[in-house]
Amino acid sequence: MNKGFVHVYTGNGKGKTTCAVGLAVRARSRGLRVLFSQFMKKASGGETSLLDKLGVDVMVFERILSPLFNPSVDREVIRKEALVAIDSLGNVTADYQLVVLDEFNHLLTESLIKEPEALGLINRIAIRAELVLTGRGAPDWLIDRAEYVTEMKEIKHPLSTGTLGRKGIEF
Amino acid sequence: MNKGFVHVYTGNGKGKTTCAVGLAVRARSRGLRVLFSQFMKKASGGETSLLDKLGVDVMVFERILSPLFNPSVDREVIRKEALVAIDSLGNVTADYQLVVLDEFNHLLTESLIKEPEALGLINRIAIRAELVLTGRGAPDWLIDRAEYVTEMKEIKHPLSTGTLGRKGIEF
Repeated sequence: MNKGFVHVYTGNGKGKTTCAVGLAVRARSRGLRVLFSQFMKKASGGETSLLDKLGVDVMVFERILSPLFNPSVDREVIRKEALVAIDSLGNVTADYQLVVLDEFNHLLTESLIKEPEALGLINRIAIRAELVLTGRGAPDWLIDRAEYVTEMKEIKHPLSTGTLGRKGIEF
Repeated sequence: MNKGFVHVYTGNGKGKTTCAVGLAVRARSRGLRVLFSQFMKKASGGETSLLDKLGVDVMVFERILSPLFNPSVDREVIRKEALVAIDSLGNVTADYQLVVLDEFNHLLTESLIKEPEALGLINRIAIRAELVLTGRGAPDWLIDRAEYVTEMKEIKHPLSTGTLGRKGIEF
């Protein structure tokens, strides 16, 4: 019997990571122990350092999704990094009451970890903690497994590229 | 010419306020001046006090939406409260670079303020600041006016009422 629920934030709209940050802040404000792990390196500093200041433990796995932008990357190497990451997460998460795996869903859509491996980690965390998974393209089996699923649906987004990436707003 | 963009988070799914909290945290982490105003009184303390600690200014308008749960309420009194609120917001927001009006959309769906009144406030804020509006049922004219619109769509939610309202998770 799981103690924690699994939350999934997926879809193509803005707000998935932002929402995970908000959940971490809320949980901290209530005194819960929170782990915020990121699989995509975001623009340096920013909310991660502020979460750290609030007493949220932050883990960043930089060598998994970011290298995929390089087309000549060896995916077997990346897969091994992913397996090491989920293994180390499995070992530390017992200490927390809320665990965020930000952009985790991309490990699944990119086939870097397999369904049973992901389910093993999810079940191991959810025995004790609330678990939040973000990222586009959550697979059906994950939606079946989760208790809360919200799709962030983009209705409107400015097209002008000159407006993207404003510090403090988009990152 | 507006300097700030208007962001709308709407829909029936989880994460609208949480996302606004996350945006406020991000903006503060980049040193922006942030005003977080709430139109629905949430369970006391929680993220509002933590936002306050981070240097986010918080304004709570308790006498607008919450009294509507009482069926014998005089809606004309409430409408006056709403007009006072948007007036005072219009006067203070010039100092900020990010302004959140949490649950503001309900003022519109409840017809407590009219479209031109709301647009006046929105335009006045967006001249200088990024503006975030949350709440279900954003009307079409607001979606037209906004630059970013995300619909939080509930795909799945636990049915058991015993699981609702867990401190640190739902509030």
